[in-house]
Amino acid sequence: MKKAGGDYEKNLAGVSRREMLKIMGAGAICTLLPGARHGESSEGFSTSGGEGLIFLVGDGMPLGVIKGMHQIRTKVYGEKGTNFYARMKDPNSMVGYMSTDSLSSIVTDSAPASVTWSTGVKTLNRVMASLPDGRPLKTIMELVKEQGYACGLVTTTRVTHATPAAWVSHQLQRDAEDEIAMDYLKFKPEVLMGGGSRFFDPSRRKDKSDLFKAFADSGYDVVSEKAHLLSSETLSSSKSLLGVFSSSHMSYYLDRIHQPELSKKQPSLPEMTRIALQKVSKNPKGFVLQVEAGRIDHANHSNDAWAAILDTFELDLTLAVIEEYLKFNPKTLVIVTSDHGNAGWGVNGTGPEYNDSTEALKKYQPIKASFEVIKGRLKKENSLSEIKDIFEHFTTFRITDEEASMIQAAMQPDFKPFHGDYVIQPDAVMGMILAHSLYAKKSDGGRVAQVRRGNVGFTSTNHTGEDQILLSYGYKANQLGLNRHVDNTYLFTAMCKYFGIQYQNPTMTEEEAKPFIKTASLEEWRRHMELHIA
Amino acid sequence: MKKAGGDYEKNLAGVSRREMLKIMGAGAICTLLPGARHGESSEGFSTSGGEGLIFLVGDGMPLGVIKGMHQIRTKVYGEKGTNFYARMKDPNSMVGYMSTDSLSSIVTDSAPASVTWSTGVKTLNRVMASLPDGRPLKTIMELVKEQGYACGLVTTTRVTHATPAAWVSHQLQRDAEDEIAMDYLKFKPEVLMGGGSRFFDPSRRKDKSDLFKAFADSGYDVVSEKAHLLSSETLSSSKSLLGVFSSSHMSYYLDRIHQPELSKKQPSLPEMTRIALQKVSKNPKGFVLQVEAGRIDHANHSNDAWAAILDTFELDLTLAVIEEYLKFNPKTLVIVTSDHGNAGWGVNGTGPEYNDSTEALKKYQPIKASFEVIKGRLKKENSLSEIKDIFEHFTTFRITDEEASMIQAAMQPDFKPFHGDYVIQPDAVMGMILAHSLYAKKSDGGRVAQVRRGNVGFTSTNHTGEDQILLSYGYKANQLGLNRHVDNTYLFTAMCKYFGIQYQNPTMTEEEAKPFIKTASLEEWRRHMELHIA
Repeated sequence: MKKAGGDYEKNLAGVSRREMLKIMGAGAICTLLPGARHGESSEGFSTSGGEGLIFLVGDGMPLGVIKGMHQIRTKVYGEKGTNFYARMKDPNSMVGYMSTDSLSSIVTDSAPASVTWSTGVKTLNRVMASLPDGRPLKTIMELVKEQGYACGLVTTTRVTHATPAAWVSHQLQRDAEDEIAMDYLKFKPEVLMGGGSRFFDPSRRKDKSDLFKAFADSGYDVVSEKAHLLSSETLSSSKSLLGVFSSSHMSYYLDRIHQPELSKKQPSLPEMTRIALQKVSKNPKGFVLQVEAGRIDHANHSNDAWAAILDTFELDLTLAVIEEYLKFNPKTLVIVTSDHGNAGWGVNGTGPEYNDSTEALKKYQPIKASFEVIKGRLKKENSLSEIKDIFEHFTTFRITDEEASMIQAAMQPDFKPFHGDYVIQPDAVMGMILAHSLYAKKSDGGRVAQVRRGNVGFTSTNHTGEDQILLSYGYKANQLGLNRHVDNTYLFTAMCKYFGIQYQNPTMTEEEAKPFIKTASLEEWRRHMELHIA
Repeated sequence: MKKAGGDYEKNLAGVSRREMLKIMGAGAICTLLPGARHGESSEGFSTSGGEGLIFLVGDGMPLGVIKGMHQIRTKVYGEKGTNFYARMKDPNSMVGYMSTDSLSSIVTDSAPASVTWSTGVKTLNRVMASLPDGRPLKTIMELVKEQGYACGLVTTTRVTHATPAAWVSHQLQRDAEDEIAMDYLKFKPEVLMGGGSRFFDPSRRKDKSDLFKAFADSGYDVVSEKAHLLSSETLSSSKSLLGVFSSSHMSYYLDRIHQPELSKKQPSLPEMTRIALQKVSKNPKGFVLQVEAGRIDHANHSNDAWAAILDTFELDLTLAVIEEYLKFNPKTLVIVTSDHGNAGWGVNGTGPEYNDSTEALKKYQPIKASFEVIKGRLKKENSLSEIKDIFEHFTTFRITDEEASMIQAAMQPDFKPFHGDYVIQPDAVMGMILAHSLYAKKSDGGRVAQVRRGNVGFTSTNHTGEDQILLSYGYKANQLGLNRHVDNTYLFTAMCKYFGIQYQNPTMTEEEAKPFIKTASLEEWRRHMELHIA
């Protein structure tokens, strides 16, 4: 099986394992490539007769972070390319743009965005697969399941989060995650993997139900550890699979790389995708598998450039697994997209003539933890020197007293950000500090960079309204009209067309929806956002 | 000719003149549609036998501002659509993405970006059509001119600015605009229109040459007023045309709409494009016409959302002129793109559930002047109340003392921006204030929006590194490989292919180029940036 391992490596767009180890640190490559590790890269990827659809979402993954990931790997690590760009440049790929407006707003949240894909219908922000007046909408997963296809949902967020849930659940409120877990139990997808054990665990659920037991009783293998997921017992089982590997969201890829106890427990997105494909492809009719790199969004809300880049890197490595799968199963359509922009992610031109831009982007590389981890270590009572020590420990950058004061201020409950929309704190302040080099005045009145830091800028800590990338390839890709600008609702149409299904959900106009808009108060929204990304 | 006028209106993606008048104010529509005004919409647009290429550039026009323009018109003004999106959605259009890295940086400036298009070669930031070591590169305009095609360059910047100039000039420094004007005189494009009379005027040029006279002596019609440009004398002339309508850049579309003396003197981009097409299409062999909406870039450097939206609107209206031209001349290829990102332009989700996003975007509409004009009225000695009055006069927003202090501080020479890269001031501060609603604390601890303002955020006042939109349609568009991700250098290849030209310029690697990088000092760069956008 040595050769298969070699092929696998080639799939990583020319990235050798050696290079990967250099980039990600020892252990990372093993974490990523279980097949290669075991010399079993093609395990389970036998040819199936069915028609498959892999729908890969980078949540809140605007154009900027995709390019940032590509630039880091090609310009900083000297790799030959990325899987994402290899497919974007392939003459056989379909490349397009997608608008993301929801029914209530030119800026969507993940719930109605995912509903447009699953039902072809626009609804209100925060609503699952239902019209604003409560009428449930039939989803693509319900439609294909009726016809005997297998269904799988894989994410790095809680499995009960909006993007996967909107393909199954009809809750009117995305935060009803206890209920969404129950909706999964009723729907019975063949594969369900991600985080969010608190919505399955009887000691954490409001109704005290033991959903792990309920899934097991319904014929599921239930796993909560990576080793168990990757065991031959799980692989060879013909049961459906529930894998829940963390209480809330799974950890950022950045943190899994740097904390062995996390990567020991939590599988990577490529690993979960590999197992999911092995499972759902056993269905002779075919399958729909949604795979979500769900925390690119969270990193962008936090203005955490390096966590966002690495979670996007993990999406790119997931594309390598899919490439390998396609070799054995050419009757598979792959759609890759993002649900909305987030925080206007941009690599800013840096220094005179922008000639320091590459050097500045390199400065994120030594960062050893996400803001989520750093924030977990900071306390609002910290002294400036404590803040400076903690920040330096994780980022290598020794910040000034003034900058430490900014972080300290941003942790206080009455903090008023300079930009009104930079509300997620102290994350946004840390993001700004990391994107800010320190200059000294020269005797001639000019300035010289004393300390070079990074250069990723953000427009806010909120989603943004611009169009998103749309990439599709594989079986029938050239027959679906995805090679142009489409509305997000069109993806439902394209998926129905792929499966030969004719179905039209009811719709509501913006005007008809207005009476049903019950916008949360600012405080409720703040609590939602805390729940959302934490 | 009533019917032709009607057709013209339909070309505006369903925007009636009545709606246009409502949107842009009386006078705007007449400014825009000279053909319709005179009942002569098809004048000059007879069918020519040649092969035409229209290369339309939105300089520094990232995805966000295109969408912002579309959202303003569809969601705020209730228009049915935009020309840009009509073509993006057309199954016959080719839609792709383009990377923009220069030889020296992952963030390009407009000079090497335009050089990639004109020569297929990457060079250093700020260099015209030459390799870093000074070897000149042959441009697409030189290649087609040799074969007898007509060449035209139209822009809203100084005609000597980087984007048009890089298709003709081989200067090693884009700021050598005196020399670039001379290069045009040698090259003799059939049409050259935009701003920048100071590089033609003997009283302003370093060498005191009268380039207006020199162009006239070389057989050009030389015009400097809109009325003269649109006169039947100019239209019927078979001479080449030099039109220079302002000392530096032409005014922002926003300012031309609101200041009759500006729109009296300066033609609009659609008007210049119409005349240019009438001229260059007379060549029986065909033509290359570059048209640039060149100040979207400047507005974005200034974080001036409304000026950027309206200059992008003007680009969209230019597409309507091109639509009309295509009806008579189907043997025309149209390429629409942008040279680089700028300032991470993003419509931020606003308010709880982002449901205030549309309302917030509407708040830019009453703004009556660009930051260029507002800044021209502000003085660093202004009192806070003077600053508040001036800002309110142009924007309708009464800002707080604290906000006025921020503007005041940003006008002082020793100002240190919170973000190191928000260097263009007080523009960036004004942009932040306009994107910042004012909230009051409620008795329950929550907040309520007291004053709703806009919601366009920026990542810096610099260019950004993400990929740009690439749209092409018309003659042979489906044969050029532009329906995927391409490097910016590929556009030269595609244009050569279109004209059946085989040509390969020499190239240098990044490593070979390094000894030739003579990055400006920060102070030189600051002076360049001042010259650049002012």
